[in-house]
Amino acid sequence: MKHLNTQSPNFQDELKALLAFETAQDPKIDQIVADICTDVQTRGDTAVIEYTNRFDGTSAKTMADLSLSQTDLQQAFERLPIEVQTALKTAAERVEKYHRHQKMNSWQYTDEDGTLLGQQITPLDRVGIYVPGGKAAYPSSVIMNAMPAHVAGVPEIIMVVPTPKGERNDIVLAAAYIAGVTKVFTVGGAQAVAALAYGTESIPQVDKITGPGNAFVAAAKRRVFGVVGIDMVAGPSEILVIADGSTPADWVAMDLFSQAEHDEIAQAILISTSQPYLDNVQASMNRLIAEMPRRTIIESSLTNRGAFILAKDLNEACEIANYIAPEHLELSVENPDVWAAKIRHAGAIFMGKYTSESLGDYCAGPNHVLPTSRTARFSSPLGTYDFQKRSSLIQVSETGAQKLGKIASTLAHGEMLTAHARAAEFRLK
Amino acid sequence: MKHLNTQSPNFQDELKALLAFETAQDPKIDQIVADICTDVQTRGDTAVIEYTNRFDGTSAKTMADLSLSQTDLQQAFERLPIEVQTALKTAAERVEKYHRHQKMNSWQYTDEDGTLLGQQITPLDRVGIYVPGGKAAYPSSVIMNAMPAHVAGVPEIIMVVPTPKGERNDIVLAAAYIAGVTKVFTVGGAQAVAALAYGTESIPQVDKITGPGNAFVAAAKRRVFGVVGIDMVAGPSEILVIADGSTPADWVAMDLFSQAEHDEIAQAILISTSQPYLDNVQASMNRLIAEMPRRTIIESSLTNRGAFILAKDLNEACEIANYIAPEHLELSVENPDVWAAKIRHAGAIFMGKYTSESLGDYCAGPNHVLPTSRTARFSSPLGTYDFQKRSSLIQVSETGAQKLGKIASTLAHGEMLTAHARAAEFRLK
Repeated sequence: MKHLNTQSPNFQDELKALLAFETAQDPKIDQIVADICTDVQTRGDTAVIEYTNRFDGTSAKTMADLSLSQTDLQQAFERLPIEVQTALKTAAERVEKYHRHQKMNSWQYTDEDGTLLGQQITPLDRVGIYVPGGKAAYPSSVIMNAMPAHVAGVPEIIMVVPTPKGERNDIVLAAAYIAGVTKVFTVGGAQAVAALAYGTESIPQVDKITGPGNAFVAAAKRRVFGVVGIDMVAGPSEILVIADGSTPADWVAMDLFSQAEHDEIAQAILISTSQPYLDNVQASMNRLIAEMPRRTIIESSLTNRGAFILAKDLNEACEIANYIAPEHLELSVENPDVWAAKIRHAGAIFMGKYTSESLGDYCAGPNHVLPTSRTARFSSPLGTYDFQKRSSLIQVSETGAQKLGKIASTLAHGEMLTAHARAAEFRLK
Repeated sequence: MKHLNTQSPNFQDELKALLAFETAQDPKIDQIVADICTDVQTRGDTAVIEYTNRFDGTSAKTMADLSLSQTDLQQAFERLPIEVQTALKTAAERVEKYHRHQKMNSWQYTDEDGTLLGQQITPLDRVGIYVPGGKAAYPSSVIMNAMPAHVAGVPEIIMVVPTPKGERNDIVLAAAYIAGVTKVFTVGGAQAVAALAYGTESIPQVDKITGPGNAFVAAAKRRVFGVVGIDMVAGPSEILVIADGSTPADWVAMDLFSQAEHDEIAQAILISTSQPYLDNVQASMNRLIAEMPRRTIIESSLTNRGAFILAKDLNEACEIANYIAPEHLELSVENPDVWAAKIRHAGAIFMGKYTSESLGDYCAGPNHVLPTSRTARFSSPLGTYDFQKRSSLIQVSETGAQKLGKIASTLAHGEMLTAHARAAEFRLK
């Protein structure tokens, strides 16, 4: 872990260096992905089957070998131990409840001239959820991507998940069952993204694709953006903990580990107003690291990108948080509501010592897909609203057309757009 | 204008061909833009001044020569004829009123365990508005981009607008004055976008850039996306009119012209259930084209991309509209509310014969920045919500941590994320 002190004259530069992260796109990956996309667009199912057999070591003959029905998903759920079934169900219910609060509704009003103005909200027709397979198989990610679409009222939710060497993950499929997924195709990589974006004989074309993936998946999502909607292409995950010393040091140490265990490039930062507390957390980390199965990953992540920051007070700590705009912000302090009100930029704010990030990752209710790499300055968690959209409604009354027509005509002539002006003038009596 | 008939066996293919539009990015433009962005990032103001003098034919010595204060904007407003002042003010007021309805508010709830869940809404800190200069100077575009940011509560709105040969457009500057712009820099092109994205000594770094521009501006926005937020990179503008024959043919003809006059690649499509009505609109167009100053543009647009579609009934017309997902949809029919309810995908819906698109473009209230090229299937008009963002709030109670901790622990072990599980377990009694 690096050690920073806000009183250091170089603090701003050190903080900038700590956060710097190059997300250069690899032109070789882009070229491979471009070729796969074109091929899937041209040859459809045949190309998808070929790439899947080649990259995932499967031996599918037709798309039927790569398709799972609702019944398959249900059976996967039923094969799970009862406590896993219950955990999935409870998590899904809590996520569903929270996301119902996010649902947008249509509205309209009529002005004094009888002109109606409003906004009509509709769900997307069909969405695709990308779920990584293999070693990083996250059922929680299925719930967090599919449930908002389900709550938004999207009629068809198509999930794609690779099954390297044909190995299916029951918890992932069970999560799909619980979260309202309509159909699953066991394909992955750029070929899965291309199939969802362009459609094939078997895989229906969707309107938006969400969900995490490797560099090939990310490049494919960037490529098909515009043809379909996509969610953010996520950067490495980050946590910032602000601690006043009231939370047991072991708890905070483990919260930092839980971020670091994701990935060598994940970032965990702790800000405290107390150097002795920072020392205690360091001591906890030194002791607790021994019991971590992902010790190597945690150690690289913390060595390369982790930091302790000593701040002079909590106000200053909050200002640093606003600069960092972290994906996850733990306010591990007394009266966290007072400090949360000072936070302008963060993906999710975990308030108080009982709110470990991991509770939010799985089951508190809010989404765990959050803006990374300082993008919380201008973007939001994945939510129900990402699977709904708005159409403006305008119904100008005859009276309204008299007033609005004159204004539009004046402004249109100012922009030298005569047809615009004439169209408005035609509606004048 | 092309003529399509839904009864033709090739209708689907013909419709697809009609809508097809290549938006290939030019690698030469991308390279020029990349160089400009790097240069502005490295040399700041000096680079911005050099590019501006070179591309806009100005002779600025310092950034002060390229900066306008609130007083400059106010003076521009005061130089305008009174009817233009009034038109701008009324338009801005109506746009402001509509956009107030879009403002998102924070919310929270407490569950049965005393766990608090919610969403905190904050405005962006600082945004940049790009406004094209020269021949296509649109004051309405200033209002439509700046007002939502203003209503969202963004404290600083920085506008950039090129002034080729130093020529300033009073209506554009007056619109900035009315719409709450904080500061204007008279720079444009990729150099303006880069300056807003990275910041220079004089131009402050923003969190999001919105507004239309040429191919260089679009390429620069794509390039800086991620460093800052951007709005959609817009395709050519489109209108789809569905007419049952109750609107005077001249009115519909002029509405189609008002779309076509934007651009040779703009698209205007009319669907009607009556061939005689389509013939009447054609006759109106033949007669009215003579009085159009932008006749050449209108004729190319309509010849290359315009179409009449004969449909068998209004239900079928609405289904075609849902496939096209048009930027602008005029329901020029009796009882338009009945038909609007069947529209799932459209940027804005203009209902009834008095609602010409041009009234919406300038002053009805809703935004005129709308999703193009079928992207209304998954995206929305520019709005107040684009200048606000959400942070999830989670405050788990001690009781809540007991229940949630067990679920999180079970699921985290299922994902082999031990630190996640341990962090949850630490909070168990």
